[in-house]
Amino acid sequence: MTVEFTKYQGLGNDFVLIDNRQQAEPLLTPEQAQKVCDRNFGVGADGVIFVLPGQGDTDYTMRIYNSDGSEPEMCGNGIRCLARFIAELEDKAAGASHSYRIHTLAGVIVPELLPDGQVKVNMGQPRLLAEQIPTTLNSPEEQVVQRPLAVNDQNWLVTCVSMGNPHCITFVEDVASIHLEKLGPQFETHSAFPQRINTEFVEVVRPDYLKMRVWERGAGSTLACGTGACAVLVAGVLTARCQSAATIELPGGPLEIAWAGGEEPVYMTGPAEPVFTGHLG
Amino acid sequence: MTVEFTKYQGLGNDFVLIDNRQQAEPLLTPEQAQKVCDRNFGVGADGVIFVLPGQGDTDYTMRIYNSDGSEPEMCGNGIRCLARFIAELEDKAAGASHSYRIHTLAGVIVPELLPDGQVKVNMGQPRLLAEQIPTTLNSPEEQVVQRPLAVNDQNWLVTCVSMGNPHCITFVEDVASIHLEKLGPQFETHSAFPQRINTEFVEVVRPDYLKMRVWERGAGSTLACGTGACAVLVAGVLTARCQSAATIELPGGPLEIAWAGGEEPVYMTGPAEPVFTGHLG
Repeated sequence: MTVEFTKYQGLGNDFVLIDNRQQAEPLLTPEQAQKVCDRNFGVGADGVIFVLPGQGDTDYTMRIYNSDGSEPEMCGNGIRCLARFIAELEDKAAGASHSYRIHTLAGVIVPELLPDGQVKVNMGQPRLLAEQIPTTLNSPEEQVVQRPLAVNDQNWLVTCVSMGNPHCITFVEDVASIHLEKLGPQFETHSAFPQRINTEFVEVVRPDYLKMRVWERGAGSTLACGTGACAVLVAGVLTARCQSAATIELPGGPLEIAWAGGEEPVYMTGPAEPVFTGHLG
Repeated sequence: MTVEFTKYQGLGNDFVLIDNRQQAEPLLTPEQAQKVCDRNFGVGADGVIFVLPGQGDTDYTMRIYNSDGSEPEMCGNGIRCLARFIAELEDKAAGASHSYRIHTLAGVIVPELLPDGQVKVNMGQPRLLAEQIPTTLNSPEEQVVQRPLAVNDQNWLVTCVSMGNPHCITFVEDVASIHLEKLGPQFETHSAFPQRINTEFVEVVRPDYLKMRVWERGAGSTLACGTGACAVLVAGVLTARCQSAATIELPGGPLEIAWAGGEEPVYMTGPAEPVFTGHLG
């Protein structure tokens, strides 16, 4: 069987995209996807994304298999790549704006392809209560803002935000000087986080420009984390460190994040670039 | 410009192969090759190999750009991939045996594609004198066989072999227990090796089966090193530890190495597998 694909990347987070519109089941098994993702013996990618037929009132369904064969609910960088891939499949003229209703395991997501090729995604409401993170750093129904956390014989003031997955944000003077490989695993497995945690260290360059580094739960140091950038902006707003819209610079490049506060959703805008097309088998 | 390519891998050492038979200059610059090799933002590979027209009495010329943009003289895993790619370009029937005279920066190399798809390569004579390695572990015109070398407060008995590039081989009881990331850099930069060194730790499982791990000069721990496997077999023969032909198991898989001793060349036989084809741009 020959499988056509296109590889896309968003801030260095890279995916093999497969046109799976003809059937409701992914063309590859998780084991096959794992082999495709292998960077020495396969195509090499962080995950394989399948564009399946829509369900209910959605245009398409997104499924992802990670490079370890697991299936995440959603992926902020991945859905931007998916939006551009769909536009290519539908042969939409560049320079126009399109939005798609996408069924995902995390609910319906509506990415919008902007005229400049960037993709804007409604990432949903942040959840801020301790029990929603989850964390034991405050009473279950309280927010966790600037709470002390002892890690590596040091007291850190942390703010916690869930974007469907849990994040612990720490603002620092100089993000480059943080020893991420040492601190990341200690935050990730701290007893205050029963489901472990994604950890972000953030430097406020200006109120509309933050610089972050991320230690992802289960993945370690990565070039970019879409939900992490959203959580950082929310934490910046909650602690009055930044504006309601700001550029978040990640190691892989910048994302534009906006949150009007309260019950409003967080919007993420960023790039998704085709790298090459190919076929397996 | 659209550039067609096929990715191949040999023991996990992976290359983007480009049909460059129409012109004598590579279709990509070293800078472009570097971008193609990037595993997050590009196709992802250890190097780009170009099949150019032959020179003199050769069938083809091989050029390689490494992922850092540098150009090595030759690459044992790469030339196996090249042989299979040429057979595909020439549309040779599978199951037949073919050999090609390839012009490389290290001289003429003649890989032979065997009926089972493996590729056998004459890797040239090993050079054994201290000045040829080069190393100061013995007088310039003496061989370096089982000589003591102090590294990390321990005395190691090492044997040195040049296969066009320098190798320092140490036989150990249990290769899995070697702390390669710690010892590798200390061997590599030891003052006994003025041009630095590739370092192999080897366990003799049987006289016809050795297990090795390699620390490559400038690249660190890798899945496979063709010249390293050749040097290991030569060192095994020189120290009467193994037969004149043996399987060398590397982290990426096995190679068959044979050396009849003295002035004879070393032969390496191993796999090269197509992974996928694609196009850039």
